[in-house]
Amino acid sequence: MARQARAIQTRESILLAAAAVFDERGYSSATITEILQRAGVTKGALYFHFASKEELALGVVAAQLDLGELPPQRTKLQELVDHGLLFAHRLLHDPLTRASMGLAMDQRRDAVEPAPPRGTPYQAWIDRIDQVLKDAEARGELLPHVVPGDTAELMAGAFTGIQGMSHVLCERADLTRRVIVLLQHILPSIAVPAVLPTLDLAPDRAERLLSARHDIRPEIEEPGGAPGVPAPRRTVAVAAR
Amino acid sequence: MARQARAIQTRESILLAAAAVFDERGYSSATITEILQRAGVTKGALYFHFASKEELALGVVAAQLDLGELPPQRTKLQELVDHGLLFAHRLLHDPLTRASMGLAMDQRRDAVEPAPPRGTPYQAWIDRIDQVLKDAEARGELLPHVVPGDTAELMAGAFTGIQGMSHVLCERADLTRRVIVLLQHILPSIAVPAVLPTLDLAPDRAERLLSARHDIRPEIEEPGGAPGVPAPRRTVAVAAR
Repeated sequence: MARQARAIQTRESILLAAAAVFDERGYSSATITEILQRAGVTKGALYFHFASKEELALGVVAAQLDLGELPPQRTKLQELVDHGLLFAHRLLHDPLTRASMGLAMDQRRDAVEPAPPRGTPYQAWIDRIDQVLKDAEARGELLPHVVPGDTAELMAGAFTGIQGMSHVLCERADLTRRVIVLLQHILPSIAVPAVLPTLDLAPDRAERLLSARHDIRPEIEEPGGAPGVPAPRRTVAVAAR
Repeated sequence: MARQARAIQTRESILLAAAAVFDERGYSSATITEILQRAGVTKGALYFHFASKEELALGVVAAQLDLGELPPQRTKLQELVDHGLLFAHRLLHDPLTRASMGLAMDQRRDAVEPAPPRGTPYQAWIDRIDQVLKDAEARGELLPHVVPGDTAELMAGAFTGIQGMSHVLCERADLTRRVIVLLQHILPSIAVPAVLPTLDLAPDRAERLLSARHDIRPEIEEPGGAPGVPAPRRTVAVAAR
């Protein structure tokens, strides 16, 4: 049991190190050697968990998707808003989220190197948004012409572009504001009018969600935190602040 | 005069070669050597026109911005639509546009290499959209709450992200459809209702614009075409098809 706990901790350290290196260097320039150094684990330990750089990338994306559930809200469209605002918050604070975004946006197509799994994060984000929109549709929150799949793809793509532009222009300092502007432009085209004034799009919404909920895992800034596995101490610490 | 014409042609060949290499390899991996080989010019000729790789990148962005004017329409919002649809068309056919987009999306931050001028294309696209929106506002086409600058930044960022996602998922095969979906979601939030049913968002709009107008320069697929300078023969050919 102690051995299993140690294996889980090793896997986490590797994923966080990989996320940090992918984020800083890009997938193509990242090396297993640097990830090993950063994680402070042996080559054997790394290859026990991940057979290749691509598996590391897929592990990072899976861990990002597994970051805390959102609390249910009175409308599914508020949950959609919350997804967007929390994702923006995580891009500012969580290396797993930044690394997943970096993979999606990686443009290098060198013949030498197998391409990063660029489509995987997009597809996962689209599926997640699509599900929330389908639930919203079932509850009568969407205007009748809305095609959830189209809107989900639009939101995944537009969000990615907006955060990329914010990254280039100001290191994401204005990201929350830009995501609110995106939501303010999209929501009136998809929501039944009565839902619109009930939606909370305030800039501090993500922080309020994180501090109010015990079961949302905190953002992880360094090895020792836990992507994809329970981290009870830190969760309590966040719940108490 | 013959010497001047040759200098212009050399400059064009260099810009198109640089655009192709930036598009294929990314800015950071592109080398002056490969651009020289592709353009078929001497090192001296290249450095006569462009002092550095960064100047080449800025030249590519400037040439992209200088690609054909759009014909005036009955509403400024139709011109906004036309900008978007034509930009999508050019991403499929024009290396200058693809290279400018690639510069904006370049994520590499290697210490060795000076960063590409990532912010330049974004700022230019934002300024252009902002001007069209301000004109639309002056003509009473916008809803009163719209802030042109916010909407312009949103559209530049969202467009960039949508084309990036389309690039990853299907080599931009569905780009036109995705841009139409973007416009369908944004326009109802910014346009006065009476303008909406007058807008032409058809998938073949860009091709119709290009074939109807004599003064829109054709998309350029190979050296010999002309970014930023008149190319009368090819223009006539396009107008006549």
